[in-house]
Formats: sequence, structure tokens, C-alpha cells
Amino acid sequence: MKKLLLIGIGPGDPRQITYEAVDALRRATVFFVLDKGADKQDLVRMRRAILERYLPQGGYRLVQVADPCRDGAASDYVGAVQDWHGQRAALYARLLEQELAGDEVGAFLLWGEPGLYDSTLRILERVRLAGVALALEVIPGISSIQALAARHQIPLNRIGEPLTVLPGRRLGEQARIDNVLVMLDGQCAFAALDDPHLLIYWGAYLGTADELLVQGPLQEVKSRIVQLREAARRRKGWIMDTYLLRRAL
Amino acid sequence: MKKLLLIGIGPGDPRQITYEAVDALRRATVFFVLDKGADKQDLVRMRRAILERYLPQGGYRLVQVADPCRDGAASDYVGAVQDWHGQRAALYARLLEQELAGDEVGAFLLWGEPGLYDSTLRILERVRLAGVALALEVIPGISSIQALAARHQIPLNRIGEPLTVLPGRRLGEQARIDNVLVMLDGQCAFAALDDPHLLIYWGAYLGTADELLVQGPLQEVKSRIVQLREAARRRKGWIMDTYLLRRAL
Ligand SMILES: C[S@@+](CC[C@H](N)C(=O)[O-])C[C@H]1O[C@@H](n2cnc3c(N)ncnc32)[C@H](O)[C@@H]1O
Ligand SMILES: C[S@@+](CC[C@H](N)C(=O)[O-])C[C@H]1O[C@@H](n2cnc3c(N)ncnc32)[C@H](O)[C@@H]1O
Repeated sequence: MKKLLLIGIGPGDPRQITYEAVDALRRATVFFVLDKGADKQDLVRMRRAILERYLPQGGYRLVQVADPCRDGAASDYVGAVQDWHGQRAALYARLLEQELAGDEVGAFLLWGEPGLYDSTLRILERVRLAGVALALEVIPGISSIQALAARHQIPLNRIGEPLTVLPGRRLGEQARIDNVLVMLDGQCAFAALDDPHLLIYWGAYLGTADELLVQGPLQEVKSRIVQLREAARRRKGWIMDTYLLRRAL
Repeated sequence: MKKLLLIGIGPGDPRQITYEAVDALRRATVFFVLDKGADKQDLVRMRRAILERYLPQGGYRLVQVADPCRDGAASDYVGAVQDWHGQRAALYARLLEQELAGDEVGAFLLWGEPGLYDSTLRILERVRLAGVALALEVIPGISSIQALAARHQIPLNRIGEPLTVLPGRRLGEQARIDNVLVMLDGQCAFAALDDPHLLIYWGAYLGTADELLVQGPLQEVKSRIVQLREAARRRKGWIMDTYLLRRAL
């Protein structure tokens, strides 16, 4: 049995982590950090900063590995993601064999909330199917969605209304937008919408020193967001942003 | 200017609170606790327990007030909720006038995540419109949704798919259910669904010693959930439960 903790660490602010998550950090002895290339160095650095802050005495091992790249241009999105998951499952299985002894506790530090648009649980399910016995524990974390709502001081839903969370590439399919929270939108899908009744609440690098916030009627502010986003992405080399679209009453 | 902190305290486990939230608890001097009648005494007790745990030295005031009751049977749901918000706004305005001096910091301890199906932000918006100047700060908290996913060890969404969060009374309207997270369902709306392809992941009293979890094909487990839920509700006098419905692949 390999003991593994999947720990939600929040969206960027090291104070936006729970006591439960820090207890879990203290139980782990081996941390697996996946390195997604130069752009994402900052994210690896932020994970290290969390470890240094909450485990100042050290006493753990950090296993840093290069993450296989996903084919971002593939036309079959789900298929491409599944291939990629297959490669990562093989990589994780190998790492767990080599790097985690039976009496050790391993951990993955997962950005935001482990249950939202994070593939680690799915990949570990494949590792399990491949015959590696795993004892998992999942620790929730503050999602970027929640940081967005808190910073804009808005509820995520309106009275009695549904809230839909989706990836940018699915935004175009929505017949009607009342309350839609968009993540993973590298293409600024909001900019293609011409509905005059929508409000947008946008945030980038939430919880970090580089945080950006814009809110207003979509048609009035969308080009400003596109520009701000592009300038920030160039300057830092990467961007993480999310937004809520809401129909004005 | 009345300074007010809206602090998300998580869904029940006092360790499922963030360091940011505990910092906020320490800055507040007056805590407003709304008492919703005998059933909800446990929830007031859990809030007190959080204060005692994280502020053992005391040094704060607790203002406990009876919350006006909402007309649960009204046919116009949104209208009834809005009337109720109006009453609460008047109550909050009065409390802030009488109980919070200009140099003090007030706080509301909000269950789970402040942005999800919580009316405090909306009510304070009305208080503002009534002429009370407020300086707000919102601190995210772990939602019961996240506790549910963590305990069942499942992702909230599937690859590239949307997730919809809605109150129980809106479940019947869904044309197709792929990934639907239901809160506030006192009527067991899931039990009325006869789709044979749905899985349910259900949890009650998440994060507490009374936690209950059931997962399985909806048609196989739904009557067990209804029975378990009713027995628990009788025993404790109240219940809080939430569930994810997911289409089997
Ligand atoms: C792979 S998903 C992981 C989401 C994460 N599990 C969560 O709960 O926030 C990455 C996406 O999350 C959003 N995101 C994560 N952190 C963010 C931050 N600090 N500011 C803005 N958006 C963020 C962006 O939409 C990004 O494309
Ligand atoms: C008024 S809403 C508030 C939700 C809260 N803001 C959150 O983020 O969880 C109350 C509903 O939340 C869900 N809920 C809250 N705490 C829960 C718990 N510990 N276990 C299960 N469900 C819970 C139930 O669906 C309940 O009807």
C-alpha cells in the first residue's frame, strides 16, 4: 500500500490554506512536484514557498519531475487529454515504485481545490487499475473561483439560481448565460460574446502580489481585459485567470 | 464606516478553516451570530467552538440575535426570500448601529464558502443602499461541496465537462444531468429521478462526527439514502446534506 495525500493548497496566497492541509503537509515525508516547463517555474516556486513556510524544520524529500507535455493542438480534446493521462499514469506509477517506501507518506500539492479541473485523482485511478495499491486521502483547498468571488465581494450564485462552472472551450456552446464561471480560458472566449446584458467579474493571479481585477458590463470592459491580460502574460511569461459572467437583472 | 469581515469557516470540521480566516478572526472584536431556532442550536454551538479554539484568550464580544423566520411555504420563492432579506437587512442595520463602534471590527462567521447559497452579502448590499457605509472584506472558506468530493475521493467535474451547482428545487427542471451538485434539498429531489444511468455521491453532516456517506447507482441506493437521511434528521433534529449526480460513462 502506497500512502498518498492529495492536498489542496489554495490559489496562490500561502495564507489561503487550511489547518487540515497543513496537518497533512506535516504528515508527509515525500512531496511530488511536477514541473511543467519554464513558464510554470513560478508555480513550482510557490509550492516550495508553502513547504518552507509551514515545514521550516525540513525533514522531507522533494521529488521534482518533468511533466509530459499535452498535445494542445489535437482536434480530439478528450482523446488527447486521455493519452496524456495515460503517460502521466505510467510516470506516477514509476515514481511511486521508486521514490515512496511502504512506511513513507507521499503528497501532491494541488493548486486550488483538488476536485476542480485537476487530473491527479483521475490519473491515480489509472495507476490503481494498473495494479498499484494506493491508500489515498484528499484534502480540500480554496479554489480560484472562491478567491475571485471574495475579491469582487460577490455571491457566486443568485437567489435560487444555478451556477455553472466550465472550461473556456465550452463557453460558446451555452445557449443562455445566467451565472457562468469560466476557468482554463487561454483564448478569451468571453471576448466573442456580444450579449449586451452580461456583466463580467474577472481576476488573474488571484491571491498573489500580481493580482488583477476588473468588473463591469462585458461589452464595456472586454477589450480592456484582453489587453491587460496579454500585457501581463507577456511580462510574466504565464497567466492564470478566471471569470464569472452574470446576466444583469 | 462600519468595518465588517465575512469569514468562511468551512462546512463543519474546525480544521477546515484557512489561516487567512483565523487571521481575520483575530482582527475582529464583535461577532454577530444569528440564531435560527432550536434546530440550529448545534450550528451556533459549532461557531462558538471555532471561536474558543482559535481565540482562547477571549477579548471579543458575541452578539447573538434571533433571525427572522422565512416563509418556507410561500409559493413565490424568490419573492419570499426577498421579503426575508428585507427584514434581515433592517435587523442587521440596527445591530451595526447599536453594537459596532467606529473603531471596532465586526465579523460574521459564514458556513462553508461565503459565496455559495449564503445571503449575507446580498443583505449587506441592502444595508448599504439604506445608507449605512460599510467597509467589507470577504474571506473564502471550504464549501460543503468540496468536503463532499474530498470524502468520496472524486473530481467535481469530468474532463472538459461543465459542473452545475443548484438548489434542490431546481433539479426537476434539468433537461439532462451530467454533473450536477445539489444543495439545499429538503425534499430529496433525487428520489424522484428514474434515469438508470445516474450515479449519486451523497454526504450529510460533512466534516463532523456524525458524517454520513453513500455512493452508488442512484436507482440502487436512493431509498437507502432517503431512510438514512430521515432517521438522522429525527435523531439530531436537523440535517445538512449535499450530493453530486453524475452520468455513468
Ligand atoms: C487546471 S485548472 C486548476 C484549478 C484549480 N484546481 C482551482 O481550484 O482553482 C487551472 C485554472 O484555474 C484558474 N486559476 C487557478 N489559479 C488561479 C489564480 N490564482 N488566479 C486566477 N485563476 C486561477 C485558471 O482559470 C486556470 O486556467
Ligand atoms: C444555505 S446553504 C450554505 C452553503 C455553504 N455556504 C457552503 O458553502 O457549503 C446550506 C446547504 O449547504 C449544504 N451543507 C452545508 N454544510 C454541510 C455539511 N456539513 N454537510 C452536508 N451539506 C452541507 C446543504 O446542502 C445545506 O442545505
